[in-house]
Amino acid sequence: MPGYEMSKDQLMARLRRVEGQIRGLQQMVEADRYCIDVLTQISAVTKALQSVALGMLDDHLRHCVADAVSAGGPDGERKLAEATQAIERLVKS
Amino acid sequence: MPGYEMSKDQLMARLRRVEGQIRGLQQMVEADRYCIDVLTQISAVTKALQSVALGMLDDHLRHCVADAVSAGGPDGERKLAEATQAIERLVKS
Amino acid sequence: MPGYEMSKDQLMARLRRVEGQIRGLQQMVEADRYCIDVLTQISAVTKALQSVALGMLDDHLRHCVADAVSAGGPDGERKLAEATQAIERLVKS
Amino acid sequence: MPGYEMSKDQLMARLRRVEGQIRGLQQMVEADRYCIDVLTQISAVTKALQSVALGMLDDHLRHCVADAVSAGGPDGERKLAEATQAIERLVKS
Repeated sequence: MPGYEMSKDQLMARLRRVEGQIRGLQQMVEADRYCIDVLTQISAVTKALQSVALGMLDDHLRHCVADAVSAGGPDGERKLAEATQAIERLVKS
Repeated sequence: MPGYEMSKDQLMARLRRVEGQIRGLQQMVEADRYCIDVLTQISAVTKALQSVALGMLDDHLRHCVADAVSAGGPDGERKLAEATQAIERLVKS
Repeated sequence: MPGYEMSKDQLMARLRRVEGQIRGLQQMVEADRYCIDVLTQISAVTKALQSVALGMLDDHLRHCVADAVSAGGPDGERKLAEATQAIERLVKS
Repeated sequence: MPGYEMSKDQLMARLRRVEGQIRGLQQMVEADRYCIDVLTQISAVTKALQSVALGMLDDHLRHCVADAVSAGGPDGERKLAEATQAIERLVKS
């Protein structure tokens, strides 16, 4: 059971909002809106996606990783390494 | 006429692909896919959006900004300030 | 005892290298080197700092956070919240 | 003559402040300061460096790039391509 189970509705709501923002971007481009305004909107979508990612990561650390670490053994180790790699991808993206 | 006019089709194609990636994210969450896999996909979407933004910014500098600067006067100045602010938002997002 | 204890020498070595890069930047500016070359070097220093941060965060998750979580109780909870906030600052910086 | 000529003193002052922050980081690690506090400081240094980079880039666009574009010819084109690549490195670092 993934860690974000309890807030799956919220997560879906946020991803649907991001989808709406992407469609808004397409309409801006279709309507030849000024580049700078489109860029401002892209920055807003990027921030919204980062915020979703940080929320999921927080849940993941609190549930999947914490549970595996508490149980001890190699799974905790593996989940920690995996989490660090995910954080690295977020920081670099 | 915005600077990205000439590659509007490409830009729309990329934004439609990003929209598809966002819908893919929703399906992953709906199907309770593993958090780390969802996070990897979010990083990919963020990179795709950044790449769209950098492409638009490049076009904007080459057309709107370059034209205004070549024409001289306060509009070039204003467009340069605007571009710097957009770059700042991209770097910080 | 902080989590990075075991690799303190390595960490110090990397921070000294970053200090050298910053001094190199000062020399480039002093010598009126081309802006783009200075910017390239700033990007390299930023990446080096991010890499130090990711290494420290990994150690921190593996030691301080994992120990507190394994011990159970409110300290684990607090350390997880703290780690998420640190990750958020890294992602946004 | 590089674009940041006029504010070279300010630029040097900011780089010296960053150098001081890096030395502060070394002292924190030497003194076994709490990882999270070190990470907070690293985020602050990264933001300071980004701010230096954005200031230099702004100057560069206003002087080197604007002059080359106004003069017309292939140099303007080359300087615009170079600036876009520098922006890309900043966004990705």
